[in-house]
Amino acid sequence: MNIGILGGGQLARMLAQAGRAQGVNFMFLSPEEPSCAAPFGEHLLADYDDLTALKKLAQWADVVTYEFENIPAQSIQFLEAHAQVHPSSNALAISRHRVTEKQQFATLGIATAKFAAIESLASLEVAVEDIGYPAILKTCTEGYDGKGQRVLRAPQELASAWHDLGGVPCILEAMVPFQRELSIIATRSKTGDKVFYPVSENYHREGILRLSLSRPNDPMQPLAEALINRLLDALSFVGTLTLELFQVGDQLLANEMAPRVHNSGHWTIEGARTSQFENHLRAIQGLALGEPQVTKSAAMVNIVGERPVTLVHSQASFAYLHDYTKAERPGRKIGHLTLLDETGAADGLGFTQRVATVLALMGEDTLEQALLTGQIQIYSAS
Amino acid sequence: MNIGILGGGQLARMLAQAGRAQGVNFMFLSPEEPSCAAPFGEHLLADYDDLTALKKLAQWADVVTYEFENIPAQSIQFLEAHAQVHPSSNALAISRHRVTEKQQFATLGIATAKFAAIESLASLEVAVEDIGYPAILKTCTEGYDGKGQRVLRAPQELASAWHDLGGVPCILEAMVPFQRELSIIATRSKTGDKVFYPVSENYHREGILRLSLSRPNDPMQPLAEALINRLLDALSFVGTLTLELFQVGDQLLANEMAPRVHNSGHWTIEGARTSQFENHLRAIQGLALGEPQVTKSAAMVNIVGERPVTLVHSQASFAYLHDYTKAERPGRKIGHLTLLDETGAADGLGFTQRVATVLALMGEDTLEQALLTGQIQIYSAS
Repeated sequence: MNIGILGGGQLARMLAQAGRAQGVNFMFLSPEEPSCAAPFGEHLLADYDDLTALKKLAQWADVVTYEFENIPAQSIQFLEAHAQVHPSSNALAISRHRVTEKQQFATLGIATAKFAAIESLASLEVAVEDIGYPAILKTCTEGYDGKGQRVLRAPQELASAWHDLGGVPCILEAMVPFQRELSIIATRSKTGDKVFYPVSENYHREGILRLSLSRPNDPMQPLAEALINRLLDALSFVGTLTLELFQVGDQLLANEMAPRVHNSGHWTIEGARTSQFENHLRAIQGLALGEPQVTKSAAMVNIVGERPVTLVHSQASFAYLHDYTKAERPGRKIGHLTLLDETGAADGLGFTQRVATVLALMGEDTLEQALLTGQIQIYSAS
Repeated sequence: MNIGILGGGQLARMLAQAGRAQGVNFMFLSPEEPSCAAPFGEHLLADYDDLTALKKLAQWADVVTYEFENIPAQSIQFLEAHAQVHPSSNALAISRHRVTEKQQFATLGIATAKFAAIESLASLEVAVEDIGYPAILKTCTEGYDGKGQRVLRAPQELASAWHDLGGVPCILEAMVPFQRELSIIATRSKTGDKVFYPVSENYHREGILRLSLSRPNDPMQPLAEALINRLLDALSFVGTLTLELFQVGDQLLANEMAPRVHNSGHWTIEGARTSQFENHLRAIQGLALGEPQVTKSAAMVNIVGERPVTLVHSQASFAYLHDYTKAERPGRKIGHLTLLDETGAADGLGFTQRVATVLALMGEDTLEQALLTGQIQIYSAS
């Protein structure tokens, strides 16, 4: 079995790590060198719109997938004409455009923050009257990790924000005072079978995910599953899908979807019987999905920018290091640690200490304090 | 971190798969090409006694280990003079020589079948008088998967067996009428911390392991742990160690030890929180060992000789395929499937069906029948 992946970063790397054990071969089409996925397959060094390279990938691969959504829609359509591609170009097109995405949510009755499509400074000025302050202006495409967005707090900020973002089509969204940021990850097979992972509770700093806590038996789990289930069915989705959510009271507002494995699901490698990566591969190959049973509690802490000098020692009995072997660079995700709950610590107290220790190692002092003072609470599945 | 491995087969491959996620680099010294481990590192194509290659490996690696015990003792001693090597040459020397190994067991009060060192046909004729028939004659070194051994049932078989095995130093062992073949796997860290996995119950055919069942809470677990614990301490062992045992009534007789990860522990990849491979790597790097918690029940079925045409379909929700990407050849281990127990099937009935289905796929009809008729019983940890 040959699987082609658009992209050569850590998501492609972890997909390949999951697949190589089963004898699956990988080819990564990516314009970036070095590629941290490359050691696990062949690196096809080319731009995402290079038709010759896309054709080579399509001819080699039994099935093609992608690790992120900023791929030209035409490239996916071209691939679909020459190969089996999962998830479909339709899912990709929706998720790569923030307005289309929000409209899809609306169509399916999935609540969101108030939003408006922005085509000009004039339309921004009109829309903000309705949406109010604070609001957030985001480019419709290409943004990630806090890039391509500006928070608007007063009328005099509109023009500079619009120009900062390049005067491209944008979306204006109300900033909702949410209690928690959650995400839910699910996989749907070709035959329509589905597995749902427990929701993750996510903490960002400077627009970058720092901490995800797995939340088995979270009270919001049934609603989160119902929402992502609508997307899976409406899109006849094949593969792993992520839905990011804001919790406001008992409500869940959809923020965005990603038609792929997701950083907030990395804890599934050790914390679930079958990881998000393996289930994505099973789905796109037309195999039965693996069982998603999870451990009591798990956490994922990103390694951002640089490796702490004591990182190797963080491989405590409960910690599992993933080093993407990428060069250090400010704000860059270069690895993560999965932390698993200990047996029998039903109050989660031991696990709180475990997670806090690792957060301190990563320089995440605010999150560490939030944990130790109970602002963030660890709880375990019973 | 650079780790050198002597050997380039599936054990080296699975060690490297476990280590690559953490950013560890691997080099495999092996005279065999192709090497199924090679895609996960650099392949140093050389004989095990090639001093130039050994020196290159030692200079490159932070620590050197090995995937099997048929390595010239001088090679390991040479490596130890130039690099950190775990497990030690002492552990290797004991385990690669069947008489030395049995004497070590005796020294530590670990019971074995009756045995005698055989240096000549004459000494064989004397020894068999004491040990009786049936007995088994094995070469002291080099044997594996049933190779290098002959069963003796009558005096007229002695001469031909001795000559068939090449007239080399041998061991004669009484054949014990055992109830079960078990193995226990444990890892010891540099600081003397240890983790013990549940015993595996093993089934061979034609001298080749076909099925291992993990046995959490087995009544023989405490005794098995006590026995391997003596070896771990006596050898100041660093890494993963395997002890093969015969159960005779309430007794455990040691058959042999292997100073390495073992086929009967492959189920730990999915069936334990930290696999035998990852814990071996943690130990030899001087890191804390990972927690060994296991799922209720797990089984490992080897893929021997050829891949069933329907193999891919065997990736059911409970089955995890490992394909070593080796060419098919009669009697060759080319992959395995891990099968995990379903949630809530406390009587193990569902799991029995699962394992039986996969055994049938592999052509293991006798084992399949033994399972379905209850001769082999699946039971789960409570």
